[in-house]
Formats: sequence, C-alpha cells, structure tokens
Amino acid sequence: MRAYNFCAGPAALPTAVLEKAQQELLDWQGKGVSIMEMSHRSKDYVAVAEKAEADLRKLMNIPENYKVLFLQGGATLQFSAIPLNLLGKNSQADYIHTGIWSEKAIKEAQRYGQINIVEAGTKVEGKLAISDASTWQLSEQAAYVHYCENETIGGLQFNQIPETKAPLVADLSSSILSAPIDVSKFGLIYAGAQKNIGPAGLTLVIVRDDLLDQVKPEIPSLLKYSAQAKNDSMVNTPATYAWYLSGLVFEWLLEQGGVDAIHKINQQKAALLYGYIDASDFYNNPIAPANRSLMNVPFTLADSNLDKLFLEEAEKNHLLNLAGHRSVGGMRASIYNAVPLEAVQALVQFMDDFAKRNG
Amino acid sequence: MRAYNFCAGPAALPTAVLEKAQQELLDWQGKGVSIMEMSHRSKDYVAVAEKAEADLRKLMNIPENYKVLFLQGGATLQFSAIPLNLLGKNSQADYIHTGIWSEKAIKEAQRYGQINIVEAGTKVEGKLAISDASTWQLSEQAAYVHYCENETIGGLQFNQIPETKAPLVADLSSSILSAPIDVSKFGLIYAGAQKNIGPAGLTLVIVRDDLLDQVKPEIPSLLKYSAQAKNDSMVNTPATYAWYLSGLVFEWLLEQGGVDAIHKINQQKAALLYGYIDASDFYNNPIAPANRSLMNVPFTLADSNLDKLFLEEAEKNHLLNLAGHRSVGGMRASIYNAVPLEAVQALVQFMDDFAKRNG
Repeated sequence: MRAYNFCAGPAALPTAVLEKAQQELLDWQGKGVSIMEMSHRSKDYVAVAEKAEADLRKLMNIPENYKVLFLQGGATLQFSAIPLNLLGKNSQADYIHTGIWSEKAIKEAQRYGQINIVEAGTKVEGKLAISDASTWQLSEQAAYVHYCENETIGGLQFNQIPETKAPLVADLSSSILSAPIDVSKFGLIYAGAQKNIGPAGLTLVIVRDDLLDQVKPEIPSLLKYSAQAKNDSMVNTPATYAWYLSGLVFEWLLEQGGVDAIHKINQQKAALLYGYIDASDFYNNPIAPANRSLMNVPFTLADSNLDKLFLEEAEKNHLLNLAGHRSVGGMRASIYNAVPLEAVQALVQFMDDFAKRNG
Repeated sequence: MRAYNFCAGPAALPTAVLEKAQQELLDWQGKGVSIMEMSHRSKDYVAVAEKAEADLRKLMNIPENYKVLFLQGGATLQFSAIPLNLLGKNSQADYIHTGIWSEKAIKEAQRYGQINIVEAGTKVEGKLAISDASTWQLSEQAAYVHYCENETIGGLQFNQIPETKAPLVADLSSSILSAPIDVSKFGLIYAGAQKNIGPAGLTLVIVRDDLLDQVKPEIPSLLKYSAQAKNDSMVNTPATYAWYLSGLVFEWLLEQGGVDAIHKINQQKAALLYGYIDASDFYNNPIAPANRSLMNVPFTLADSNLDKLFLEEAEKNHLLNLAGHRSVGGMRASIYNAVPLEAVQALVQFMDDFAKRNG
C-alpha cells in the first residue's frame, strides 16, 4: 500500500502519475522502447518535451516574452548560474535574507559580485516573520533583487510579491505551482523539481527575454541561459525521463483544475494542520501567521524527548518523513500538491491521539 | 513488444532492469513510497546509493585512492568542470583531437586556459584512424592530457591507453563498462550515463584523490570535485532516480558475469556487424580496423538516396534509431551493453535482405 509521505524533497508524487509512468515504462505508446531510451532529438521525445512546456505555460500563465528552461543541477547550481548570467558589468545585486536557503544563494553570489544583503527576518509577537518590503534598504545599482519565496526548512513564506525597481529573481523551489503567481512581476523564477514538479534531477528556470545578455565571461557554457533558450534546453542531453515525468505531473495538475483548484485544497490542508497546532497545548509552530508556509509546516512537541517516539509511531501509522531538517530538529510536515487532504486528516488524527496519550 | 534499439543515446537499457524498476515504481521494497519520493539523506536511499557505488567499484576494479562521483549536467558540464578543477595555476593542458566530442571539450577548455591541441586524426589506407601516441607533441607544463576514448559520432576508438607523463583525463561516455579498463592509468574518467550506465541526467566522475586541490576561484561551488567527494555526491539533492536505475544496471552487469563477460558479447556483436559490412559491396564503414568503435558502428549505403527507405523498412522490422548523427548523416548502429546479440543478428539479416533487394 502507498503511505502518506510528508518528505520535504525528493517529495511525494501523485499516485496517478506514477501509475501512468509504470504502465508505459517498458513500452512508451506502443513504440517498443521506454521513453528514457529515446533520443532527446527524436520527434516523439521532442513532442513530449514541448507538451510539458506548453502545459506549464498554461498552468502558470507564463507570458510569451519569458523562456522556460528545463535544466540540471538543482537550485544550487542556479545559485551560481544566476549571478553568472545576470550580474553584468556592475556586478551588484540585492539579496533578501530570510533563512537557510536564501543564505546559501547569498554565499554563492558573493563569490561573483558585490552583494547587498537585506536582513528581512523579524519577529512579530515572539514569532518569526518577514519584514515589509517597504522597510528594506535596496541598492540603486542592483542588477536584480533575489529572494527565496518559501524557506523550506524554516517554513517561512512571503505573503506577497515584493515591489522592487530592479528585476525580481525568486527561488520558488518549494512553492511553485502551489498557488497562483503573477509571472510578469518577475525577471527570473527558478525551482528544483523535486517538490511540486517531478523527480530530482530537473530544474526549471523561467526567465524574461531581456535578461539573457548580461553573461560573465567565466561562466561554464552549459549554464548560459541564452544558449539553452536558443536550443530549447537541449544544448546537450537533458534529463529526459525527469522532464517526461514532470510533464505527467503538469497533465495531472490540469486534470485537477489547475493551480487555482490545487491552491484551494492546499489552503484546506494548511488551515487544518495549522488550526490543529494552534488549538493544541502540546504542539507549537514558530512562525507568525502572516508568514506561514503553505507547503512546509514545522512544529515542535511540548517535550522534545518524545520526538523519537512520535516519529516511530507515525511511521507505524504510514505517516512518513515527519522529522524536521537535520539543521533545526523538531518536526516538519511538507504538504505539497501531491499530498492529499486525507493525508493531512490522518496526520492530525494521529497527532491528536499521540498528544492525548503523551501530553 | 520491445523493439531492438540502436539509439546512440539516450540508449537502450536492459529489459530486466526496466522490469524491476517497473515492479517497484510505486512501492519500493514495501516502504509505501517510490524510490524517487525518498529523501536522498534517508537510510534507505543512502544504502541504494552506496550499493551502486560499491557495485561499480567491483565492476571496474576502481582503486581505493579514487573517488566515484554521481553528478548532473552530462559530459558537457564536465567539459567546463575539468579545466576549472584541474588546470591549476599553470593553466595549461594537452587535448587530443579525434572528432566532434573531443573538439567540444577543447573549445570549452580554451575558455579557461592555454590548451595545446594535438591533432591525432589520421588515415590508414584511406580509412580514418588515430595516430600513435608516440608521435604526439605533448607539452611539458600540461596539468593533464585529455582525450575522448570513443568518438560516439565518428565511431572512432582508441585501441590502447596512451602513455603520458601528465595525468590522463578520459571521456568514456560511450565506452565505459563495455570492456575492461585499467582505472589506475587515469587521473580522471568521466561519462554521461545515457549510454552504458543508466538514464540521461546522471554523470559519473572517477577521480584520483591527489587531483582534488587545483581548483580555480571562479568555479561554481557545485562543480568542485573536492566538495562533492567530501559530501558523497550530495552537496545538494542528486538525481536520485537516475542513480537508483544505474545501480540496477550495475547489478544486472554483475549478474551477466561482469565487464569481462559483457566484453566478450560486445566483441561478438561487433565482429558480426563489421564482418558483414566488410564482406558487403553495398555497405561501407569509414574507419580503419584498428580504431573501430566497439560500441558505435557508422556505415553508409552504396546509394545515399536509399537512406530514407532503409530507415523506414528497418523501423517496420522493429530495428530502431539507425540514422547517423545529424552532423554526418549515413547510418549508425550503437550496440551498447544492453543491445543483445540477437539484435545485431536481426540487423545483419535485415541489412543483407535490403542489399539484395536494392543493391
């Protein structure tokens, strides 16, 4: 049987998607070969790749003056690729600091330019929050402003798109496709696939056409957005199977009614879990309500000595991967698109039962 | 039914591997989740990753003073990573030029250092060949000597490992695991997975410990071999599913009797196909016998106007992907490890039948 999987990433995929992939794994649409055994330049594969892009454009309403790239290396390789592609001659950018992932992006960018770090972490009534963009000291010369829209480890999320003069660059790894977003407000959006898109090994970059020509000379050729855009993300062999699976996820999302529909379910899931935690004396979430993540819900138990028992019993109840990130401890439930409402209902029921027995 | 797939890459995978992957796609070993839905840092996944490495070490007899890295970005990203990691302060290296892939490596390396290009393409009795290493003008200051062991497009392969003073760096993308090779003669071996290893999206690097500390300052952090070695190729989320599938391929290879055993079959396959071509007046292979590729067999028809018909009829006979690379035309049969002897027998029979009808 399939368990409920709250892993932060590589994360749960829709069961229907895995079933379709399973069914055609050895023989894709009667062609006698697996989709992963096909040349990326074959007509059949190119059609699969193009449909995935078209479906994503539909789902996110991506304007025509944006390129969609299907790359490799994870968001971490983008931490290098972004400054190498976008910093330009001025070599200055603003980076908003809200947690562990934005910090990683900052550290890498500092190797390539002069980075103005804006500390945006704050507290509201003792809880972690993000300061209002109007209070940030942004620099005049910044080529772009970078932020991490949802801090996967901290469970801290922006509740609106910051208004900036310079193009906005956003790490949407753990929030992409979970809620509607206005792509036209961004210069560049990037996301590792392994949360809401598909399997690990694929990275999406959505970049506005006018930002493609600021490249630094030392950039590895494969990381040039302009080259990948010109070659439909096939400067070399892409991660064909991961791209195909992502296409199946996009089809599944369209069948669910698109991003608006999944967003409503995501809101139900989050309301149920946060609501239960807030009403409980046994569990605690450290984030101010206005900046709580829709996707990653960290929580602690009243007594951390019970953490091990909680995880063991959860696993016995087919509720998997609830341990918090190794850098922070505690618990974390990642409730991405592929995690159904029933999973969160089962989790809350288990949490309640556990609290009653151990509280 | 499964067709015979002669694709140069992404290439055929063993049917038994795909069947195992299919069987456990939704529920890996009773855990209730797919292997691609698991954290790369989970005990279960780490065991899968470590077993893949251990099996590869066994298959290739990799000495202990070599690190094995499971990376992303294909051989093309290594064209940048190799000079960025290995050129060091002298910024000089020798690159052996034998065809399209070695040329791509050269072009990228030239962006980072002073590259001494050794033209090693020659002709023997009118056929393409590789000149003897003793005739090469290698430089005294080279940090390493780079070559492409098997030119996938040209079908041109080295028949011995060149003797060099500087560490040898080899692109083994299309020949790795096809024949025994003495890893201890190399400083670094790299290979895109999508021919003899697994699906596209994974890249193997096997690097000797003493070469890990020559890194150039502008290198993207994720490309540093030393960092990946220290973190067991998990500086960030690796391509977990591709790594798992590669592990299944390594298990399959061990079951076949290892590299020695598959090499014998590969020799049979190649002897059959080249033997038929040589005996035929209708088909021609342009490579000198001593440098013919064991894996990629390019050939032309007596009349190139028949190419289209040949490909159409081959496809009807379930013999797929025989078109030569778009840059050279003609035909090419890639007969990697996963292509069984029966496939080559069927191909030769078809070729013979076609020649009789059209010759």
